[in-house]
Amino acid sequence: MTSAPDLPVSPLPAALPGIPVVGMVGAGQLARMTAQAAIGLGVGFRVLAGSAADSAAQVAAGTRVGDYRSLADLRDFAAGCDVLTFDHEHVPGEHLAALEQAGVAVRPAGAALRFTQDKLAMRERLTGLGLPCPRFAPAGGLAEVEEFAAGTWPVVLKAVSGGYDGKGVWICASAAEARTVLAHGVRLFAEEYVAFERELAVLAARSPHRQGAVYPVVETVQRDGICREVIAPAPGLAPGRAAQAAELALRIADELGVTGLLAVELFETSRGLLVNELAMRPHNCGHWTIEGAVTSQFEQHLRAVLDLPLGSPAPAAPVTVMANVLGGDDADVYDRYIHVMAADPAVRVHMYGKPVRPGRKIGHVTVTGTDPAGLADRARRAASYLRWGKEDGE
Amino acid sequence: MTSAPDLPVSPLPAALPGIPVVGMVGAGQLARMTAQAAIGLGVGFRVLAGSAADSAAQVAAGTRVGDYRSLADLRDFAAGCDVLTFDHEHVPGEHLAALEQAGVAVRPAGAALRFTQDKLAMRERLTGLGLPCPRFAPAGGLAEVEEFAAGTWPVVLKAVSGGYDGKGVWICASAAEARTVLAHGVRLFAEEYVAFERELAVLAARSPHRQGAVYPVVETVQRDGICREVIAPAPGLAPGRAAQAAELALRIADELGVTGLLAVELFETSRGLLVNELAMRPHNCGHWTIEGAVTSQFEQHLRAVLDLPLGSPAPAAPVTVMANVLGGDDADVYDRYIHVMAADPAVRVHMYGKPVRPGRKIGHVTVTGTDPAGLADRARRAASYLRWGKEDGE
Repeated sequence: MTSAPDLPVSPLPAALPGIPVVGMVGAGQLARMTAQAAIGLGVGFRVLAGSAADSAAQVAAGTRVGDYRSLADLRDFAAGCDVLTFDHEHVPGEHLAALEQAGVAVRPAGAALRFTQDKLAMRERLTGLGLPCPRFAPAGGLAEVEEFAAGTWPVVLKAVSGGYDGKGVWICASAAEARTVLAHGVRLFAEEYVAFERELAVLAARSPHRQGAVYPVVETVQRDGICREVIAPAPGLAPGRAAQAAELALRIADELGVTGLLAVELFETSRGLLVNELAMRPHNCGHWTIEGAVTSQFEQHLRAVLDLPLGSPAPAAPVTVMANVLGGDDADVYDRYIHVMAADPAVRVHMYGKPVRPGRKIGHVTVTGTDPAGLADRARRAASYLRWGKEDGE
Repeated sequence: MTSAPDLPVSPLPAALPGIPVVGMVGAGQLARMTAQAAIGLGVGFRVLAGSAADSAAQVAAGTRVGDYRSLADLRDFAAGCDVLTFDHEHVPGEHLAALEQAGVAVRPAGAALRFTQDKLAMRERLTGLGLPCPRFAPAGGLAEVEEFAAGTWPVVLKAVSGGYDGKGVWICASAAEARTVLAHGVRLFAEEYVAFERELAVLAARSPHRQGAVYPVVETVQRDGICREVIAPAPGLAPGRAAQAAELALRIADELGVTGLLAVELFETSRGLLVNELAMRPHNCGHWTIEGAVTSQFEQHLRAVLDLPLGSPAPAAPVTVMANVLGGDDADVYDRYIHVMAADPAVRVHMYGKPVRPGRKIGHVTVTGTDPAGLADRARRAASYLRWGKEDGE
């Protein structure tokens, strides 16, 4: 494949008069799928990418290359946008404050995003609101962890910031294991080990006008800390518990002043629901909404940060199952499309343009229908075929 | 809104190893919506745009600016792509032949596209295959038109090439009117005036491997030669007639050697179905498939030209209605989003980023459900609100 140097590449497109431009900091798959939604909605969209090879940078016309840790780059990027939003939670809080000070519409605001950047602050805030969380305590040293454990192990140690996909979470079976984790030198807190029945998630949107919308509660299946499947709606969930989860998400969104999406990861336990994690952006637990809901989470996030009326979060099919495609041994994923597509012409394939590394999320597949078990089987087969090769730890 | 000149704009993204690049000539709304589908499918996508302001050029990272009438520009563009396809049928046939000669994978091939560029050749070919068409004859001069009319008017005169959206079609009530049309100096042919009951359309896909797939037959509602609404499936269509339409589309696709999509516009008449027009690309009659079918026409076109297994064309909802949004008196469409979205949170809005001109297609809206009349009413209201202002001729 040779490139064609003679034709000019289209420059950054000018915003149409009257049409707002949303700028998303970060150019991973969430920004990539938000770009798709922005095309339909007919609003301007730019991404701030670390590199032109990033997942969203490969597809979005409005890509600028810069560093999200640089206030100067953030300012320059924001100058071309009406609203600033995020593909991840790693923009330093002081930069968010400086941008807000300068009049940039940062959505969600730094004051809300803080609770995704500091998990201990999140636990303290939610507990203060009387919302059900696992028992927790700061863990500055081994004495505190041992006091928290009070002789009952395992205890979970979590990094206060920066963890995702199971990173930054350690399940410690003993004080000796806790000591090893503490030696990493990152700021930690301790949490009770929750023997949950299953994991659920609920996704809400909230606009600056305080309109709220909540999607059906889903079941998420994790392995090695990575989400593998999402079943929407969560099979067999008691209606009262579904209502409680929806109310929880809307209440957190409102209390924390979220604008945009809020994903709440939950443990379902014998003593009821407990909040596990929060995210304030499109989230893996909502990829099913592209086909499975009237309004996708990506469009919903855009509507919310633009303060447009929210779209219907109603399901578009009785049951939707999404399975993540992880990287396997063989990098040539495209070569396997033909088999997956021939085997099941109704499977929806979403690939992220990411180089294959074993265990890395490189895409997802979705199927809609009526039978959760049958759909999960089809989604798993397609994802497994696209992965091709052994799973981590097998 | 100031632009931000300090951050570099992302260059044309490099193709990932093993991932093919589809190049689409033309950057209107069809290319724009194909770009959305390419993001999901995870294949490379480039458009050849006349200007950086074109509908697809505003959103697609892979935009090159050039002239589809220039063989040099086409060659340069094709050099960066694995497959060449089209948003319109206006690339000169001799350029297509030259590209094929040079080994470019042109899909559909020039030999098939010819039948969309020369409507007289299309009529002759379909009639030769025994397929039902309106009666027609070449119309080099008034004598031929009068002989064709044999005293019965109106007679339809059609431009052999270049017409769309009602342009290039004249309904002549008399020989005097035909004389006026003939004076335009374009190459014409004559067709009987068909007093149809309604207009239908059927969309098929065919791959180089000769796999075929056909979508449910739809009813299209035209006004002033422009498609205003599409109802899928066509309400009350006799099953035998639906099967006949599907067979017709698959047969034409196969006989003409189409690769990619084939849209067949049909008249439903008291004497059965008649073929009106053909297109070999995504088509307005298939926009409903974005929400209403398992696989959208845009993804289907990509799969077909890439020779991937075709996706399921099955409906994703019992009934889907699409209404086109035409430009009205007031250019500020975005200002009206809030009303449309607040009034009906389940309406799906698709805007094309095109400057508003009265009567121009600038977007479409889609609703899914069960009741064709109720859905059509909702789609019409949303489209009418986004249009804002008088309709042409009112």
